[in-house]
Amino acid sequence: MPTHFPHFQIHGSADSGVLGLLDQTALPFQRVELRVSSLAACAHAIRTMQVRGAPLIGATAAFGMAFAMREDASDVGLAQAAAVLAATRPTAVNLHWAIAKLVDVLNSLSPDQRPVAGWDAAVAIAAEDAAANAQIGQYGLQLLQALPRRADQPLRVMTHCNAGWLACTAHGTALSPMYAAHEAGLPISVWVSETRPRNQGLLTAWELNESGVAHQLIADNAAGILLLNGDVDAVIVGADRIARNGDTANKVGTVLKALAAEAAGVPFYIAAPRSTIDFACPSGADIPIEERDGDELRCLSGINQSDAKQEIRQYPAGRPVANPAFDVTPARYIRGIITEHGVFAPHELGALA
Amino acid sequence: MPTHFPHFQIHGSADSGVLGLLDQTALPFQRVELRVSSLAACAHAIRTMQVRGAPLIGATAAFGMAFAMREDASDVGLAQAAAVLAATRPTAVNLHWAIAKLVDVLNSLSPDQRPVAGWDAAVAIAAEDAAANAQIGQYGLQLLQALPRRADQPLRVMTHCNAGWLACTAHGTALSPMYAAHEAGLPISVWVSETRPRNQGLLTAWELNESGVAHQLIADNAAGILLLNGDVDAVIVGADRIARNGDTANKVGTVLKALAAEAAGVPFYIAAPRSTIDFACPSGADIPIEERDGDELRCLSGINQSDAKQEIRQYPAGRPVANPAFDVTPARYIRGIITEHGVFAPHELGALA
Repeated sequence: MPTHFPHFQIHGSADSGVLGLLDQTALPFQRVELRVSSLAACAHAIRTMQVRGAPLIGATAAFGMAFAMREDASDVGLAQAAAVLAATRPTAVNLHWAIAKLVDVLNSLSPDQRPVAGWDAAVAIAAEDAAANAQIGQYGLQLLQALPRRADQPLRVMTHCNAGWLACTAHGTALSPMYAAHEAGLPISVWVSETRPRNQGLLTAWELNESGVAHQLIADNAAGILLLNGDVDAVIVGADRIARNGDTANKVGTVLKALAAEAAGVPFYIAAPRSTIDFACPSGADIPIEERDGDELRCLSGINQSDAKQEIRQYPAGRPVANPAFDVTPARYIRGIITEHGVFAPHELGALA
Repeated sequence: MPTHFPHFQIHGSADSGVLGLLDQTALPFQRVELRVSSLAACAHAIRTMQVRGAPLIGATAAFGMAFAMREDASDVGLAQAAAVLAATRPTAVNLHWAIAKLVDVLNSLSPDQRPVAGWDAAVAIAAEDAAANAQIGQYGLQLLQALPRRADQPLRVMTHCNAGWLACTAHGTALSPMYAAHEAGLPISVWVSETRPRNQGLLTAWELNESGVAHQLIADNAAGILLLNGDVDAVIVGADRIARNGDTANKVGTVLKALAAEAAGVPFYIAAPRSTIDFACPSGADIPIEERDGDELRCLSGINQSDAKQEIRQYPAGRPVANPAFDVTPARYIRGIITEHGVFAPHELGALA
């Protein structure tokens, strides 16, 4: 288990503590360290996606509330801080959950108690996220240890998008079992798919490299041949929403890996905290799929066909593009869902309700 | 059926005829017209990938031989022309087939007969390719016409990579049925996947746009959700090599579409001339898969996560990358193989041997 998470460091204590972050808009190409210690700086980091990933956004918002209490601990200051943070990323569920949690704690206290209580609550939110992810790692490690592996090669695990520590306060979800394996001395190598159109796979490759875990970058298109050729021992991905029946929405391209894993007889796992399971959602058919801006796809890589020279190229603005951001993997292709409470088959999820 | 193929135009006759080409290294971002009328210019066009696609390379090489006979029709000139062209792309099968065919025709003739005979043989090779592809289009059209289609929407066909007229002298292979449908008044819309890492899907989008056929560009990752959501009526792709049992090697990513089509109950077709079937190759396990330079993948698109600003970005040279260029689709996922001799189920291919 990596003990060093440079993208989310809590320094000091309630009266003058600061948060050390990495600017994720610069990753993986540049490493830019940020130190934030105010409501405004936290709101800016969330709004501009310097921090990304639902759990990390939630924890950063909690610290934003704590910093606000050092600036103005009045009822007005509390309400304003909640409003400022809520406006940063209006659709992020963890963000609103974290703000509500801090408001709940602070509302019942007098202004002079709020700075310390806010700090403590923010630290607790971050610690809970880290602990849940560490548990996911340990349960996932048991699965990985039970897989057959040739003595002369590492266990080869494929993932998609970024569900690593960069998206959380620590450990990650899908990557947490891989870090746990690395820490336990189980040789492991990770297939990292690019994850077009936004290339979040590069973030995964970056953090695996930072953590010393062997990995190879692949085109999303290469997942099929690698799985069917026997080059993959397991697939583990994260989740954006899990329906009650186990159908799972995740980054577009996930279901293609699930289908290829099924055809190849390779186990396919989802790793996610219990909070990702939406018990009010009966099945994948009820999960709305976000269609994102076609400009994400128009911005193309530029390999010049003649000399492989790099060039910026843009798909013409007038031409039609379709860009669904997620897909739904039917429960029947999912071997298990790795949570902080254990590993569940899709049909067993009711036990967590 | 489009009648205008701007990338391969034969102008004039044996004594002073020229070939009009489009520089495919500039497509789809720039349209650069070339006129070639010498051995050296043909060899340069093939070597630098100004022409690409096995059939187009073969036809261009045949004209290179014909132009060479206008320059030096001696036995020495003939041998030199064959050697110069053979050295351009050493592994391209159609290239060597076309050169051998011209050598065979010209060897038995006297030098004064060779310029006209060479021109005629080159024209015949191009015409044979166009005729075979037109036939593929007609057989494919019959399949498309037989598919159920809602009256209020076009037939939605998905393809991968570029197996269109740009890769041939005319019509294309996988795209030929779509052009035939468009010509026949069958409303059609094509899902065009980007085809990372080299983005040949952009060539497909470009030529469909040139031909007036409706299409939408998608990330390779989006194929799964579109197929499983019922947004695709058929998948048609080309082939690089078809084994005797019907297993088919094609651009990496093809098998992911085949698996998703199977899961969705959508028919998956290969379109290729009989010459693509390798009767000496028993199955897909016997087809070697080329691993290409990781630099194809290192050259990444640059969406800045904060403001979607376009930037050139390069994956670090020292980091491991895997880049298989093809994959093999098992015959059981292939509904039919559309050839110039008709449509065959994989197990029926023996009839073509």
